[in-house]
Amino acid sequence: MKRSERLVDMVKYLLARPHTLIALPFFAERYDAAKSSISEDLAILKQTLASNQDGILETVAGAAGGVRYIPFIGKNYAREYLTELADRIEEPDRILPGNFVYLSDILGSPQDLRRIGQLIATKYAYSNVDYVMTVETKGIAIAQAVSRFLNVPFVLVRRRPKITEGATISVNYVASSSDRVEKMELAKRSLPSDSNVLIVDDFMKGGGTLTGMEELVNEFDCHVVGMSVLCETKYASQKVVDDYQSLIKITEVDRNKKLIKVEPGNFLEQTDFDRF
Amino acid sequence: MKRSERLVDMVKYLLARPHTLIALPFFAERYDAAKSSISEDLAILKQTLASNQDGILETVAGAAGGVRYIPFIGKNYAREYLTELADRIEEPDRILPGNFVYLSDILGSPQDLRRIGQLIATKYAYSNVDYVMTVETKGIAIAQAVSRFLNVPFVLVRRRPKITEGATISVNYVASSSDRVEKMELAKRSLPSDSNVLIVDDFMKGGGTLTGMEELVNEFDCHVVGMSVLCETKYASQKVVDDYQSLIKITEVDRNKKLIKVEPGNFLEQTDFDRF
Repeated sequence: MKRSERLVDMVKYLLARPHTLIALPFFAERYDAAKSSISEDLAILKQTLASNQDGILETVAGAAGGVRYIPFIGKNYAREYLTELADRIEEPDRILPGNFVYLSDILGSPQDLRRIGQLIATKYAYSNVDYVMTVETKGIAIAQAVSRFLNVPFVLVRRRPKITEGATISVNYVASSSDRVEKMELAKRSLPSDSNVLIVDDFMKGGGTLTGMEELVNEFDCHVVGMSVLCETKYASQKVVDDYQSLIKITEVDRNKKLIKVEPGNFLEQTDFDRF
Repeated sequence: MKRSERLVDMVKYLLARPHTLIALPFFAERYDAAKSSISEDLAILKQTLASNQDGILETVAGAAGGVRYIPFIGKNYAREYLTELADRIEEPDRILPGNFVYLSDILGSPQDLRRIGQLIATKYAYSNVDYVMTVETKGIAIAQAVSRFLNVPFVLVRRRPKITEGATISVNYVASSSDRVEKMELAKRSLPSDSNVLIVDDFMKGGGTLTGMEELVNEFDCHVVGMSVLCETKYASQKVVDDYQSLIKITEVDRNKKLIKVEPGNFLEQTDFDRF
């Protein structure tokens, strides 16, 4: 097999398995090639990815070594995308009665979900995330997108009891949108204790739902490594969480005036792009 | 830029944008290379993908021509994966009270969702799908996985009214699991009329939910191009749909006897792998 053919297959293989250590002998056997040739292939791959600010190929030395593909997006590209996304959300047609904002098109767009997943996975690339957690329903798209690029499972917290998940642990929380005490629960078998959990959601107002998930993580004897939301909105009272990132921030919305103002959230400042 | 570097970038670019026509001049400009060199690159790419039964690079000739990456999985690989998946589901621990089966781990696994998405996208690669449709909650993971590989948006039917989606159209349906008449609805703006819709879901018993979605597609003046579910189970009465594919079939489940029998569903017979 020629180098060019090996490279094509290698990229495909690695992209489908981010954050996974692949031993050199695996590729040598797959392509029936010398380890020295494989090393040269990987050097080319590494350099090309690095020069495009579009993922890293990490080399792990030693007998148990190999390579690991880490998806990431550079800061300029991140800023460009979030600015463009904010512009798209800044359409008066999106304002629904009650000043809610229609985002379902973005939450169903594979190209947006790819970028959103890459962005959040960039921030948490070295946080040893074991599970991504979200709460039904719209958070699922975000969780699945991040899960793909961190290559770890996601778990789904339910707002209503389900009979198809077995025993659960539940917590109460105060929903910022209604100020009511509600209940959320997670299947016991879905999250092993001592896991590192990244919490994500589509929308955040006061942070009540995020706080509920934090509490649930504690009830499972796990650790919260971070919280990211696609979109936060201004909130009259004090938010109940402060350590979170938002990709997008809605600063003003008024259906009567057909006015909506949107800007990139605090994600750009809170992410250390220079590590890469 | 060297050929090897161009190839690495091209694969990455095309894999992120399946089913999208990319004009040759786009690549020529991106790499500052002659069109003849780009044509040679693409020929290498095409051949490597074809020999691995792992996607196709379609060439579209003419002035408006270019290349298009079509993800697909070969039949042997599909059979191997579905057999292995059936084995994993055949664990007595998965049987919940009421003979429900725990599948949440598979619906949250990025590697399973990648394969499930590729499989369903293989079957519908040439069906001109415009939208993937599913109903909350667990179907979302399947819809998003398929949406990624067909590179079309997915829309989410709700079982309960939501205030964050604007005007909706609703239908009634009879849920096979409860025999009760229920209601499902979809935001009007989420699905333009005359679209081709692929319906997917995680689980199917009698097919009542699928029928409800079919009706909803009709109410939107759209066309159903097919229906796929991850898992179907035996059902005492006649199923109300017959034109569907299931990846996995649960043929027996009995919590008292700790017995569960699972096999690949009708997907393999119903898919024409030889088109590729």
